[in-house]
Amino acid sequence: MTGTKLDVLLNRAKKVVVVDGEFPMHCGGRLLSPTIAYETWGELSSQRDNAILIFTGLSPSAHAASSAGDADSGWWEEMIGPDRAIDTRRFFVICVNSLGSCFGSTGAASINPETGQLYRSHFPVLSLEDVSRGGREVIRHLGVEKLYATVGPSMGGMSALAFEILFPGLSESLLIISSATHALPFSTALRSLQREMICHDPNWSNGNYSAETFPITGMRLARKLGMITYRSADEWGERFGRERSGKDFSEADPFALTFEIEKYLEHHSNKFIGQFDPNCYLYLSRASDLFDVADHGTSAAEAIEKIKVSRAMVVGVVSDILYPLHQQHELSILLGRGEREVEFVELPSIQGHDSFLADMDNFCPVVARFFDN
Amino acid sequence: MTGTKLDVLLNRAKKVVVVDGEFPMHCGGRLLSPTIAYETWGELSSQRDNAILIFTGLSPSAHAASSAGDADSGWWEEMIGPDRAIDTRRFFVICVNSLGSCFGSTGAASINPETGQLYRSHFPVLSLEDVSRGGREVIRHLGVEKLYATVGPSMGGMSALAFEILFPGLSESLLIISSATHALPFSTALRSLQREMICHDPNWSNGNYSAETFPITGMRLARKLGMITYRSADEWGERFGRERSGKDFSEADPFALTFEIEKYLEHHSNKFIGQFDPNCYLYLSRASDLFDVADHGTSAAEAIEKIKVSRAMVVGVVSDILYPLHQQHELSILLGRGEREVEFVELPSIQGHDSFLADMDNFCPVVARFFDN
Repeated sequence: MTGTKLDVLLNRAKKVVVVDGEFPMHCGGRLLSPTIAYETWGELSSQRDNAILIFTGLSPSAHAASSAGDADSGWWEEMIGPDRAIDTRRFFVICVNSLGSCFGSTGAASINPETGQLYRSHFPVLSLEDVSRGGREVIRHLGVEKLYATVGPSMGGMSALAFEILFPGLSESLLIISSATHALPFSTALRSLQREMICHDPNWSNGNYSAETFPITGMRLARKLGMITYRSADEWGERFGRERSGKDFSEADPFALTFEIEKYLEHHSNKFIGQFDPNCYLYLSRASDLFDVADHGTSAAEAIEKIKVSRAMVVGVVSDILYPLHQQHELSILLGRGEREVEFVELPSIQGHDSFLADMDNFCPVVARFFDN
Repeated sequence: MTGTKLDVLLNRAKKVVVVDGEFPMHCGGRLLSPTIAYETWGELSSQRDNAILIFTGLSPSAHAASSAGDADSGWWEEMIGPDRAIDTRRFFVICVNSLGSCFGSTGAASINPETGQLYRSHFPVLSLEDVSRGGREVIRHLGVEKLYATVGPSMGGMSALAFEILFPGLSESLLIISSATHALPFSTALRSLQREMICHDPNWSNGNYSAETFPITGMRLARKLGMITYRSADEWGERFGRERSGKDFSEADPFALTFEIEKYLEHHSNKFIGQFDPNCYLYLSRASDLFDVADHGTSAAEAIEKIKVSRAMVVGVVSDILYPLHQQHELSILLGRGEREVEFVELPSIQGHDSFLADMDNFCPVVARFFDN
């Protein structure tokens, strides 16, 4: 893992662990000495019993919150910090950049040490089991042998479930947010179409794009569809209504983007384009579709039995169309079959799947209650 | 309107009316002598009081049902026919191909008589008000001065509302199915993205494609997104689950379509590609977003007051994400403010927006009740 001096200067908070030797991948193939990036907040207690491990959704980095090393706001800034719901005065909080991502962890945009070339589309099939094993490498490196809790929103919830199944007993408790045991075909259709948008951009060229031939259009369209699936009709109805601006009827551009909702999507998808590697997006998106708890047993129920936490909370949102509420309810029922103390929380947020990032008023108190803060 | 002899032979059911002279468009511009295609079933009574006018959704032709002239099944085959919910023994049923479409009515794929060239992207901005006026031309041509009912599912429901507002008193009753007074920003986002997928296909070339350079990829992706918005997560969960086939993990194609839902979308979108003109799709899609009943008054409520039917039914489906149920409920409330007898029907179908095409068990009895059949 090399970075320019500037990187190191700006991101003193980002740390990495380099896996020693071979890292076999869940679906076949292997990586040689992959890097897993992570950040931490707070201090590990002398009893080493206060660590919380957070797996992220598809697109965030490990920078979940600001810190002395990196003052920029993180993706869960309001959730993590001194006296926040995840209280860094009390807990040692670890957030892992998923293996396969592009924020310090090894992924398709990294150099394969065996060839000296970028992996690109020759990266092996990525599974969320591999992502969870990346988290395992980080806590081993940090000397954490027992986690107070594992936390995962969205795709991170599936990585957290994989973690609990592959490493039973490592974690005392489990907080799953807006996630599920597997993707529904509706969600797979939406993600599959995003992948197609990228792969059909002529610039993608089977993953062999350069900075000059970046598949901008495919990424922009894919991100727009992603954003549509992350929010909700009710939220946008309230925020945008039928507001329009600009010339509606231009013969030069009869299908111009004039509705506010069209401009909003254009603005935010353009911001995303430079921030995420297209090949990494494809691998993580596909991993989200491939994951199924049921692959770890004869059924999802049998697989969930392997999870050895004493306590779990499963949180969902009524307006989520990507991981609909009934999936969290079903997961909570499966978790509740054992000796575990399980709470299912249904939140009335209107921001859809992204509510855990957008509706802090509803989410912070629930997470705080889980941690008894 | 010219067709090859084969066309005429195969489509004896399709009839056309050619508008005499100029046809001014709602948003500006005009067409010269446009053609409106339609089909009819049953016979106009001697009192001329049994005609039903049907406006279609975005993509269907006027071929709503089979007949002696065209034995192929129509898009509402189970709904229209002798002793069916829309009983052709009793009613004279007229279905109109929307102006702007490509099944006999003048649209972007037609020749502009003033230039001798295809309109392509020089077709004027299309509005559903124009579509409704196409229907007006057809019934005038047929000598119908009073309609028993106007019927519109999906986009056709908005065309029907435009028709009732522009021509108050022409219709005795109104049946609106899975439609709304306007598009929500969420629905606009989904349609806007479909338009972008077509326009970003390099083959689209600002609408100047040929049969050899058809924007196949853009159309396929757009249709897939359309299909996703037309159905529901629950239906696909039941139908497809997590079924997969083929090689999951091919290094040659790491993002291959292997889930059954991916293959289903691929199959059906490929079927659609050859059947619909991309420019026509763009115009009709944009017209669906531009339409707003409220543009016909100081508010939607005031605009709806202009509608002079004595009776209306508004039908919606719980699983519809494109025109969600609350929109039909709101429309029924607005319609109910006058002297009209209005019924709101909420159906439990799981096939989403397309339920009116897919769930005949729930839909036929409701439509039959409206027509007292």
